[in-house]
Amino acid sequence: MGKGDETRQTILSQAAQVFSTHGYFGTSLDDLMQATNLTKGGIYNHFGSKEALAVEAFEFGAGQVRERFQALLAGRPRNTRSRLLALVEQFHSLIETPLFAGGCILLNTAVEADDTNPVLRDRARYFADEWRGFITRTLNKGLELGDVRPGIDVEAAATIIIAALEGGIMLSKLYDDPEHIRRTARHLEQYIESLLRPENPT
Amino acid sequence: MGKGDETRQTILSQAAQVFSTHGYFGTSLDDLMQATNLTKGGIYNHFGSKEALAVEAFEFGAGQVRERFQALLAGRPRNTRSRLLALVEQFHSLIETPLFAGGCILLNTAVEADDTNPVLRDRARYFADEWRGFITRTLNKGLELGDVRPGIDVEAAATIIIAALEGGIMLSKLYDDPEHIRRTARHLEQYIESLLRPENPT
Repeated sequence: MGKGDETRQTILSQAAQVFSTHGYFGTSLDDLMQATNLTKGGIYNHFGSKEALAVEAFEFGAGQVRERFQALLAGRPRNTRSRLLALVEQFHSLIETPLFAGGCILLNTAVEADDTNPVLRDRARYFADEWRGFITRTLNKGLELGDVRPGIDVEAAATIIIAALEGGIMLSKLYDDPEHIRRTARHLEQYIESLLRPENPT
Repeated sequence: MGKGDETRQTILSQAAQVFSTHGYFGTSLDDLMQATNLTKGGIYNHFGSKEALAVEAFEFGAGQVRERFQALLAGRPRNTRSRLLALVEQFHSLIETPLFAGGCILLNTAVEADDTNPVLRDRARYFADEWRGFITRTLNKGLELGDVRPGIDVEAAATIIIAALEGGIMLSKLYDDPEHIRRTARHLEQYIESLLRPENPT
């Protein structure tokens, strides 16, 4: 990695933290200059605009979230139950051992950008698609393997799991209390069990 | 209501809409002037600061949400199942027949203010307390009446219901697709059934 690339990665890492707490509109150029220890020119030398930086910082953050999930999956059996529980643990970990001070960048970006910034909203949609896709693929594979109850609504399960996790994170952040995401995770563990065939535990 | 009070209510109603889509940081004085058709002085004549206006607009919005819920409850039987299903329907309605263009003011304010604005965060906490309190009171009353399964975790149920609803709203707003909150509502209808004693349907 050249010096320019390293600087760029450092800016993205620091910008991702600032955007995660202050949001896109709440982050000023001053905030970004302070976080990165760069001048305005130093930032704009690497990124053409605040929006361009926000988009790349979101993707940088998403990459870090993906890396944590890959590491989490790597230590687990590859069966249906284990993979779905790993996803619950992944979102739970964003409160217990945060990657970003602001909690979940998907939640923050989705809620802020949905009505105001189609570019950031689309990035959040793609990221949400990834998580929903992980759930639907895992459940469809589980149906093939006979692990999953036939007739369940795979798309509905993906919505329910992601919705409950994001809402649990929202409440834990609002009250500064991890109990909310813990309760949500316990509920989802039971819900996931209800999707699986009890006669064929994996 | 005097002329000043009327003007004040109109400003709050319009400001609540703008804040619901643009957020606190994303709303400029220009946005507020345009929405209210007032000058800067006209706005500051009624509200001392943007934060003061945001707090009062949030409370105005919360009042409208409460009014809808009271109207919804008024037409229902007062039993445990009916009251909990009414709460699910209330949050569902924020997507299907929105009060605010931005969806749920609790979700929006919580996610934006949790790391940045303790005054707005506290207002969001109080509002979340109201919804959680409605659920815990209803379940505790149901336990007394024998409608609810003994031994359920009332606080956990309150977290799970509000978390799933807010996450469902987040996904429906992100994808501009009501299907997500519909799936979440159907899941919660089943979950609520699981909290009730089947031998004593009410």
